[in-house]
Amino acid sequence: MTSTKINQNSLKNVRITDNFWSQWINTISKKTIPYQWKALNDEIPEAPPSHSVENFRIAAGISDGEFHGMPFQDSDVAKWIEAASYSLFHHPDKSLEEKIDQLVDLIEKAQQDDGYINTYYTVAKPDERWTDFSHGHELYCAGHLIEAAVAYYEATGKDKLVKIVSRFVEYIDSMFGPEDFKRKVYPGHEEIELALFRLFKVTGNEKCVNLSSFFLRERGTQPSFLLEEKTLIGERDRWFGLDYHQAHAPITEQTTAHGHSVRAMYLYSGMADLALETGDKEIINVLKELWTDVTNKKMYITAGIGSQGHGERFTFPFDLPNDVAYAETCASIGLMFWAKRMLEIENNRDYADVLETALYNGVLSGISIEGTKYFYVNPLEVVPSAVEHRFDHKHVEPERVSWFGCACCPPNIARLITSLGQYIYTITDDKVNVHLYMGNETKFEVSGQMVHLIQKTNYPSCGEVVFEVTPDYPVNFDLSLRLPSWCQNYQVVVNEELVDLELGSDGYITITREWKKGDRVVLNLSIEVEKVRANPFVRENAGKIAIKRGPVVYCLEQIDNGPLLSNIFIPRDEKPTISEFSTNKVEIQFLGVRVDETKWSGKLYSSEEEALKEITVKAVPYWFWGNRQTKEEMLVWIKEI
Amino acid sequence: MTSTKINQNSLKNVRITDNFWSQWINTISKKTIPYQWKALNDEIPEAPPSHSVENFRIAAGISDGEFHGMPFQDSDVAKWIEAASYSLFHHPDKSLEEKIDQLVDLIEKAQQDDGYINTYYTVAKPDERWTDFSHGHELYCAGHLIEAAVAYYEATGKDKLVKIVSRFVEYIDSMFGPEDFKRKVYPGHEEIELALFRLFKVTGNEKCVNLSSFFLRERGTQPSFLLEEKTLIGERDRWFGLDYHQAHAPITEQTTAHGHSVRAMYLYSGMADLALETGDKEIINVLKELWTDVTNKKMYITAGIGSQGHGERFTFPFDLPNDVAYAETCASIGLMFWAKRMLEIENNRDYADVLETALYNGVLSGISIEGTKYFYVNPLEVVPSAVEHRFDHKHVEPERVSWFGCACCPPNIARLITSLGQYIYTITDDKVNVHLYMGNETKFEVSGQMVHLIQKTNYPSCGEVVFEVTPDYPVNFDLSLRLPSWCQNYQVVVNEELVDLELGSDGYITITREWKKGDRVVLNLSIEVEKVRANPFVRENAGKIAIKRGPVVYCLEQIDNGPLLSNIFIPRDEKPTISEFSTNKVEIQFLGVRVDETKWSGKLYSSEEEALKEITVKAVPYWFWGNRQTKEEMLVWIKEI
Repeated sequence: MTSTKINQNSLKNVRITDNFWSQWINTISKKTIPYQWKALNDEIPEAPPSHSVENFRIAAGISDGEFHGMPFQDSDVAKWIEAASYSLFHHPDKSLEEKIDQLVDLIEKAQQDDGYINTYYTVAKPDERWTDFSHGHELYCAGHLIEAAVAYYEATGKDKLVKIVSRFVEYIDSMFGPEDFKRKVYPGHEEIELALFRLFKVTGNEKCVNLSSFFLRERGTQPSFLLEEKTLIGERDRWFGLDYHQAHAPITEQTTAHGHSVRAMYLYSGMADLALETGDKEIINVLKELWTDVTNKKMYITAGIGSQGHGERFTFPFDLPNDVAYAETCASIGLMFWAKRMLEIENNRDYADVLETALYNGVLSGISIEGTKYFYVNPLEVVPSAVEHRFDHKHVEPERVSWFGCACCPPNIARLITSLGQYIYTITDDKVNVHLYMGNETKFEVSGQMVHLIQKTNYPSCGEVVFEVTPDYPVNFDLSLRLPSWCQNYQVVVNEELVDLELGSDGYITITREWKKGDRVVLNLSIEVEKVRANPFVRENAGKIAIKRGPVVYCLEQIDNGPLLSNIFIPRDEKPTISEFSTNKVEIQFLGVRVDETKWSGKLYSSEEEALKEITVKAVPYWFWGNRQTKEEMLVWIKEI
Repeated sequence: MTSTKINQNSLKNVRITDNFWSQWINTISKKTIPYQWKALNDEIPEAPPSHSVENFRIAAGISDGEFHGMPFQDSDVAKWIEAASYSLFHHPDKSLEEKIDQLVDLIEKAQQDDGYINTYYTVAKPDERWTDFSHGHELYCAGHLIEAAVAYYEATGKDKLVKIVSRFVEYIDSMFGPEDFKRKVYPGHEEIELALFRLFKVTGNEKCVNLSSFFLRERGTQPSFLLEEKTLIGERDRWFGLDYHQAHAPITEQTTAHGHSVRAMYLYSGMADLALETGDKEIINVLKELWTDVTNKKMYITAGIGSQGHGERFTFPFDLPNDVAYAETCASIGLMFWAKRMLEIENNRDYADVLETALYNGVLSGISIEGTKYFYVNPLEVVPSAVEHRFDHKHVEPERVSWFGCACCPPNIARLITSLGQYIYTITDDKVNVHLYMGNETKFEVSGQMVHLIQKTNYPSCGEVVFEVTPDYPVNFDLSLRLPSWCQNYQVVVNEELVDLELGSDGYITITREWKKGDRVVLNLSIEVEKVRANPFVRENAGKIAIKRGPVVYCLEQIDNGPLLSNIFIPRDEKPTISEFSTNKVEIQFLGVRVDETKWSGKLYSSEEEALKEITVKAVPYWFWGNRQTKEEMLVWIKEI
């Protein structure tokens, strides 16, 4: 295995200039982050009150009152700080920076003398610190504070929050660890593991690595200390057992994904960080097995994961029901975190394909085009009457909503999109791997030279991607371009000359040359509309197709196709046409048929033939659904006839 | 409307001689009833202990110990008495009768001084009588004791239990009623309403009618007293609200079916009894609207009802998911109770068609051919891994089981099958309506004459039904034969002569003549295999067919067709063949295709075409499923191609 150290291509070196994504980043910066600030401060009348900033005020002794919200309410504030900090890279904003500064001051005041920070336990349960690792989320919230501190430091150079969380880490490290006098525990909800590696990268404090490694390697040793906690045992059913927390076995024995899908993604990301740091082959092999299990057996076509609402969790291989999917936005974000780290471990397009699928589908569906309404759950089929009336659909929302009582997803998507720059490339000593096609400018060192790279594209609407390479001095390095697995035809032109390059076993096309100022590479990916079928073991999708164009999964909406989408069929030989085209959204049409409900006898059961009529079926990107209609039907997997 | 009084064609006047059904009655009498006796006495090692007889012993002061089981555990004993009593009609059995006698003695001892009988409240909650109408089931258990008393009296002539329950009714009547000094309540689980009408028929005590009428008319008046009970409010979610108990509106305003489906069926049966007694047209009209709502919008093709496990209840029109169906055996039995009463209100084949569909499908599926294993829930699709791993499938059993913690269904099916004789005919002054085709002998009075009628048939395997009519003296009356709605071709031969008779608007063929000894009618119903489609509003069944032959719905089992039944398709033009034929079970074959999973690339999603291969699809009666295989797949609705 070739572990690669990639530290230099950090966020601040990448400026997104992409039509599609800079518009999204603008929306997040100008609308979402201000909106979420109001939400956290309980200033959005139609949203459930967050109380999360007020909780910090109470913990800081500035306000009176009681804690409100989830035990992990602090993490919403932390994720907002992280998103707002990233936003400053794109759009420097004094007033926003001051808001973050004030929050950091507040966190400092809410920090206890011993370094502890958590408003739930400080305000509501002062005597119950570290008694509920299963569901208490103390280490989870600590992890998000650490990530916030790193982002704030990277964006502003201010190390105040890094110092605050470092004191907290010192305190945590004094309590938990391998030494005899310390408690042998690990978080019920993973997050601090990956966060500690981020803190290590800015502080160089080895304690971070050791503590994270301890949490990771202690996890799942049996008998588990979690079994002694009343919130794990007796209060919940079997879907909330040890496997819910990925605590059913030591991490080196976990080769199939189980339990809460967000927790799983954060764990696997932390494991990948450990592998990157230590080169541990056993963990890398486990991660590869987990990757295959998740992406080849337990993932929706949208890169949504978690096929059960109860326990927000994985179930069993090929169990991917569309209408009761959980597919939490945070889980797809977590899958991107993990995929990014796997790309750092090993260049392989499987990771980038999934990363991209998640980004354009399971993640982006979680936010409205205005940036102020959200999906927590991202089902692949919605029938509003079922959502309204059926208990087994109660986790599904038929329309994007203003906020959630459990509001993990909105700030998570904000921090993801404002930090997209870090997902585009990995750069090793003498190689630049391009994973995502997305207009941007970046600078990096490769083969000892500084190189300026501009990427121009209207991807994924169009498949043309132009790279302008400008090294300070001529320099040899490899430029590796991902060929997405859905792409059947491509061309590479270097300085006006068509070059014939073999596809590497990693799924990348590698251009090896001496690069000079003015070098220009044009990659042309043929983007066709595909009818995709699921593995026949996925019983829900037998006899159905999904429509995909490039990385974008499509869906039918009631507003375009009328109600009862389940009665629509696409003939097997029917070819699609593109009905509307813009940089940001391509719409697709098929000639199809549907059952004409008006011609039916009205009987509940009958041996009559159903009447079919020809229709034009119109599909729009899945991420776009629910932006024009509310409480109407949506469908990804369409019946074939 | 023509309300008809039909008292004479009682169970003891009908002797079942049918090949199919006398075998079932034998199984119930010889195996099921003795097995259930052991189960009630905790003598089946592999079954969850019932404790229900022991509860009576404790309440009677004969045993020490604590109450165990559901608050309605008494009703299992009552339903067993009822079934065992009916069994005596078919198979007089001294030892069985003695067992019932002893149970009756025990019930007498468990009766409190004031007449009250309920072991749960007597033993476990002596201070909480009549505090929990929502879930306490006191009046429900009283109802089942009353039904047991009537059955025991009819079978043995012994009136001891009738006297015991009459004292209980006196006590109930002293507490609840329209008079100012009485409480205005009604049961959370209906049952006593219909039971009181049965008691009235053997005792003539008008109090029974008045009390039942009070419970029925008080139901759903607002504000409901149930809203003050803590078990209704606060402890359960919205699927357990007033509508769960059919208490959301007065009965005359309930035109659509809501809530717990067994409760609903028992309510509608009681309402029909009230209508039959009083001729109340408002109630009859409501019942007809309810009938249309249930059977035309909320009923599985098997006549299973209740499409949600949570609340065991109705959801919304056309919401009929196959794999998470509840379709409780008791609910289909209740539908038969209601249909029988609707036939007494008005002769119309709609009622008999549904009654017969329930009998041959949703009810009979609830018991194994050995008579000792049961389904509580009767889904139309089973994938064992989903049942095992998915929370939203947790109410489904992938195999028949020995007993249930909540064991309402097993004794209910026993009493239903042992009392089948009462569902075959309704007889009015000068008319004999034949609803079910089933070999039997009966005697009745019509047009003032005693008539002996023999019905001979191998229905539903074959469509020939022979009637031998033997009046004491020549007599004019109408013999009306139901033409099932699935039957497209028929012949009627009277004394060797083909007669041409129009189908009546009620769906019956009526032969009007003077009947003499030796008259012989042969009805020939053409029974074809049908491909049935569901109303296009049933989204789960779009693009699918069900196979039906006569009243029998068919299914595919894994043992005949391999796993992944979801990958099987039947071509639209494919004609069935009958592959195996016996009096008791006809098997059907189709040429079909299935996806060849072995030819798939192994990818989770791919634009490759799936490989199809030709197969022979073998279907067996739905009621038969799970008798040869355990924990394997089953499927009713098959995809068309």
